[in-house]
Amino acid sequence: MRPAPPLDRRAMARAERRWATRAEPPGALGRLETLAVHVCGVTGRCPPEAIDRPTVAVFAADHGAVLDGTSAWPQEVTALMVETMSEGRAAISALAATVGAGVEIVDVGVATEVGHLAGVRPRRVRPGTASIGRGPAMTRDEAVRAVEIGGETADVLIAAGCDCLVGGDMGIGNTTPSAALVGAVTGASADAVCGPGAGLAPERLDAKRRVVAVAIDRASDANDAIGLLAAAGGLEIAALAGFHAAAARARVPFVVDGLIALAALCVADRLAPGTADRAIAGHRSTEPAADIALGHLGLDPLLDLGLRLGEGTGACLAVPLVRAAVAALRDMAELPTTP
Amino acid sequence: MRPAPPLDRRAMARAERRWATRAEPPGALGRLETLAVHVCGVTGRCPPEAIDRPTVAVFAADHGAVLDGTSAWPQEVTALMVETMSEGRAAISALAATVGAGVEIVDVGVATEVGHLAGVRPRRVRPGTASIGRGPAMTRDEAVRAVEIGGETADVLIAAGCDCLVGGDMGIGNTTPSAALVGAVTGASADAVCGPGAGLAPERLDAKRRVVAVAIDRASDANDAIGLLAAAGGLEIAALAGFHAAAARARVPFVVDGLIALAALCVADRLAPGTADRAIAGHRSTEPAADIALGHLGLDPLLDLGLRLGEGTGACLAVPLVRAAVAALRDMAELPTTP
Repeated sequence: MRPAPPLDRRAMARAERRWATRAEPPGALGRLETLAVHVCGVTGRCPPEAIDRPTVAVFAADHGAVLDGTSAWPQEVTALMVETMSEGRAAISALAATVGAGVEIVDVGVATEVGHLAGVRPRRVRPGTASIGRGPAMTRDEAVRAVEIGGETADVLIAAGCDCLVGGDMGIGNTTPSAALVGAVTGASADAVCGPGAGLAPERLDAKRRVVAVAIDRASDANDAIGLLAAAGGLEIAALAGFHAAAARARVPFVVDGLIALAALCVADRLAPGTADRAIAGHRSTEPAADIALGHLGLDPLLDLGLRLGEGTGACLAVPLVRAAVAALRDMAELPTTP
Repeated sequence: MRPAPPLDRRAMARAERRWATRAEPPGALGRLETLAVHVCGVTGRCPPEAIDRPTVAVFAADHGAVLDGTSAWPQEVTALMVETMSEGRAAISALAATVGAGVEIVDVGVATEVGHLAGVRPRRVRPGTASIGRGPAMTRDEAVRAVEIGGETADVLIAAGCDCLVGGDMGIGNTTPSAALVGAVTGASADAVCGPGAGLAPERLDAKRRVVAVAIDRASDANDAIGLLAAAGGLEIAALAGFHAAAARARVPFVVDGLIALAALCVADRLAPGTADRAIAGHRSTEPAADIALGHLGLDPLLDLGLRLGEGTGACLAVPLVRAAVAALRDMAELPTTP
């Protein structure tokens, strides 16, 4: 894939100059100011356009490693949660509604049939991955296909006018491949990247660590981003990588969620270098590998609220901050006087 | 004033039980969960009602100590900024619009005439305070009147259906009395509570510290909250104290901004004990006295974005989090299955 376009430094310089003449003490809006400058760099426009149509795309898939005891929850919960989202009653449904964001659900690999549910785009590549504790998650061709689905999803949303994208995930067991990818990309150990995910009991963490350790070993031999995904990834993680890379390519702001989305961003930044420079980190998840990924990518998240749910929830909560930053730079008066 | 009503522990217990059966791993929404429980305790209702009509009230006033060199900006800027707000072009105007909040502007003591401006409620108690570096800011009667104006403002907004209140401030030089009040209430020294405010040059900080030190001394002799305000307060700070106390009394959630609003909350919690238990701290300002006040009040703010603008901006940015927390507890499905 081609590198992401570089940030537009001229638009960023215009944004800096614009802040300097707004009706406030210089720097008084703190992170909002740097955030708005970043959005100008992403879109190439200053003053930036108002963010009117944020959209969350939730990619759903299953994970073979769940059968090796790596998750607190049975695999069937993935399909049940997709059904809950399809009914608009999941956490991401409630949160997205409060920030005025639409929600798209994309089945890239749920083990059981969910493509018939209302609002679910049926794009299943395969019914869940193989266990990364025993062998590769998927073939290279399957990884490529999942990345393409993520990219197509972003392209379709952008063509429809969406102006801020959030990638979410639903996949029981998906902190395991995400932790493995973060370990393989950053060199962190299985012990360092493994957390309890969605509530794994302490006495079962060792099983997860063993799976992650062998997956890190396998993925560390990969020669490229597709090889990483095939060796130790997940179908929704691959789709999120393609989604983030496509948003970056299209110069559309995108907000990145917790561990799963960050693992995908690590991969996307290898697929299309520069993708991470265009990302807005939404929140700091409590999973240890999320912190490691944020550090590796050089990202400082906007929120730190102790979330560890996924679905895009933490990124969705940061959308109002992006909207506010852009609105302040756009709509504030010039300085009425100087000190 | 009577104490604030205690938080409704039964509603909070219902909220805890409701979270335990939502479609998410227990605790996965982190701070959103405790925030929603708190809102249930404030309103006495579980499931909580959706937050549909948040409103920001900005109280404006001037400060005599500005003439003693405590501010980077001349006093005239207060009136200019009130005019900018009246035109809907201040920072708070832009941010409030993005979160769907209305903005009310209340003149409680701007030095020059602003009561004729569109959207400004003329409630001037006096044209700015006297310098707290030289003597009391105002009389006890004036402090009482300003507190009453804040309370009446909250009562009118609540009667009109506002369901989440944010108190904002506009007053050149108002970090000086705020720092003095925080010092007097917490016992912190003038050196500890003084920061650069809206950009005071380092070589001028000593003048501010001297003013704050004598104001702390005077205010430390006060016997009650009104005495504190008269000795070392500001008219908008007094109004904010009344505003917060009235919101607490009416069982309406309110989000507290940075240093000025926190100084007012310290006073409100003396006026009507228990007011601070009902507060939602919006953000962590960069002013040192804000941190000291947060610690004293036992509040952990939702956002930490390096803001130091006032006007209610930091609290306004936290409103979408309150709305999201309430929506999640209200609208999420029950757990589809158990691990």
